[in-house]
Amino acid sequence: MNDPILLTPGPLTTTTTTKTAMLRDWGSWDGAFNALTASVCHDLVDIIHGGDTHVCVPLQGSGTFAVEAALGTLVPKGGKVLVPHNGAYCQRIVRILGYLGREAVVLPFGEDAPAEPARISQVLASNPAISHVAQVHCETGTGILNPLPEIAHVVARQGRRLIVDAMSSYGAIPIDLQSMSIDALVAASGKCLEGVPGMGFVIARRTVIEAAAGNCHSLAMDLHDQWIYMQKTSQWRFTPPTHVVAALRSAIDQFLADGGQAARLARYSENCATLVSAMRKLGIRTFLDDSVQAPIIITFHSPPDQAYNFPEFYRRVREKGFILYPGKLTEVDTFRVGCIGAIGATEMRRAVEAIATTLREMGVKRLAVK
Amino acid sequence: MNDPILLTPGPLTTTTTTKTAMLRDWGSWDGAFNALTASVCHDLVDIIHGGDTHVCVPLQGSGTFAVEAALGTLVPKGGKVLVPHNGAYCQRIVRILGYLGREAVVLPFGEDAPAEPARISQVLASNPAISHVAQVHCETGTGILNPLPEIAHVVARQGRRLIVDAMSSYGAIPIDLQSMSIDALVAASGKCLEGVPGMGFVIARRTVIEAAAGNCHSLAMDLHDQWIYMQKTSQWRFTPPTHVVAALRSAIDQFLADGGQAARLARYSENCATLVSAMRKLGIRTFLDDSVQAPIIITFHSPPDQAYNFPEFYRRVREKGFILYPGKLTEVDTFRVGCIGAIGATEMRRAVEAIATTLREMGVKRLAVK
Repeated sequence: MNDPILLTPGPLTTTTTTKTAMLRDWGSWDGAFNALTASVCHDLVDIIHGGDTHVCVPLQGSGTFAVEAALGTLVPKGGKVLVPHNGAYCQRIVRILGYLGREAVVLPFGEDAPAEPARISQVLASNPAISHVAQVHCETGTGILNPLPEIAHVVARQGRRLIVDAMSSYGAIPIDLQSMSIDALVAASGKCLEGVPGMGFVIARRTVIEAAAGNCHSLAMDLHDQWIYMQKTSQWRFTPPTHVVAALRSAIDQFLADGGQAARLARYSENCATLVSAMRKLGIRTFLDDSVQAPIIITFHSPPDQAYNFPEFYRRVREKGFILYPGKLTEVDTFRVGCIGAIGATEMRRAVEAIATTLREMGVKRLAVK
Repeated sequence: MNDPILLTPGPLTTTTTTKTAMLRDWGSWDGAFNALTASVCHDLVDIIHGGDTHVCVPLQGSGTFAVEAALGTLVPKGGKVLVPHNGAYCQRIVRILGYLGREAVVLPFGEDAPAEPARISQVLASNPAISHVAQVHCETGTGILNPLPEIAHVVARQGRRLIVDAMSSYGAIPIDLQSMSIDALVAASGKCLEGVPGMGFVIARRTVIEAAAGNCHSLAMDLHDQWIYMQKTSQWRFTPPTHVVAALRSAIDQFLADGGQAARLARYSENCATLVSAMRKLGIRTFLDDSVQAPIIITFHSPPDQAYNFPEFYRRVREKGFILYPGKLTEVDTFRVGCIGAIGATEMRRAVEAIATTLREMGVKRLAVK
């Protein structure tokens, strides 16, 4: 039997080519591996048009490690960070800032509403002590897309610095560092690039990372130290996840051969449209309006039927070959379906068939609140 | 051509079986993956006889991430840490403590001398403010073995707490948590268990980790938070390196089938003896006395000959199929050869042949200081 297809925000279903790239061992001090790291970092800057102004600092661990490292390294002690808040990953940034002892100013939006550039601008104008804005691009908690170009514009106009969590948007949603003023943008191997999980990376403005000595609360997460060391030696400071890096190299090769970000967005958009339209035909409603939905992960309202419960629903859909994702909202009962990974419209259609069959098996009849 | 054999302290040459375990994708929220994590954690406690007193907390990233996490989570603010110091990884602990703002008391030993329990005991007796001892078991910087049972004994007798960096000893050198009083012991996937790099783990005393709320400087590295969350959900808090965990499961299966720690120690000891005796026949001297040498990684004096230089030596030995490791001593010119990984005495003999041929090619005649 084939492994189930992952309809989650990462780890994802990856290609056999990507996984096969892990069938070699690499010396972490060896020139061949240093060249691998350098080529990956080069491409990671290039994909979002970082040019000469930005550099890539890779980091071991999950994406959250890289988000914490970026905040810890780039926000000086005494810095004050505005967090436009519309979901779980915004909340995680607030929590990290608490650990770091950096003051956070939370600007709340509804979980179904994108962050508003005008309100961000107002808060910055009336709070000159705010030094940074930490913005989640695609909020994986719901799947909402925040308007990054417009936010970058108002933050720059107010003379503040912008750090972006682009975990689930990088590689799929257009990001252009030449037209957006961004100090650091964070993502990870196991998301829209379709590598395997195990490393994050920060695309940072060169002048900013170079000036960030002494800020960081952690040796392992000190991106300034990592960057200086890599410049000097071509090596990671501490043992790199060599097989994960090799898989990412292969995944980026496939990404570029497939047509890069535009092609990835087209495929994910088709996946999303196929999924949403088939689910609506069943009668299941999306949590977000289409106008603010990123084609990454879709939040659906759970059927308001006594016969429905998520664990049973999950188990039965899994038996049919698809792994779903639980909801992450506190107020509304939802579940999530990812549309990223090495999958296409065929898999999305089959997934909805499995969902439909499961709901029939469970005797779930009422699918949406009127 | 085959990939070169890694004679390094990790990443290592792993078996094809271990690498093949990475050819599947796992959902990080899925029950099958939760069971994988639980079984790995169970065995990691069991291998060092943790019984019911100790628990395993896995952590994304390299071993250094786990060392920092253990120190940050388990040493309270205001704690004071004695670091018996005989090498680069002891120095790294001192550096981490500096980042954490925890006071370090350094007790220096020579790089060729094991830490002395009696002197540790004296320093503790005269410094009642010292709350913890942070001890490196096998110092990978040189390959020296520190006498952990005796050190654990004196630390316990002085009523202090012990945190052990067992990165390159875990799985090969005997460690018994039932007879040694240890609060936390840190190791990683890509060392003597012969997994691939990408995760560390901390085997911590249950009562200590449970009481460690609020200590940690970092969200990502907060082992208390990771432990509480895993207890509740069976899941990692943040995206786990799923493929690395699967490879470690396979590596542990092979470790146990091969005969566990005793068999691993026997193979590494044979590797070490084969390497050292063949190198001595060439005329190359070890940096350490045999009595203090762990069979993990061996430091050799560089040949004191004008014709020798490490980059050229490395390149030529690599062409012959073996990846060596540079020395890490500041005062003495050395290089290192690892004897861990999925390799045996045959590979060690062939490695020394490659070294001998290379030295001839380079015209290196003077191999040792008289």
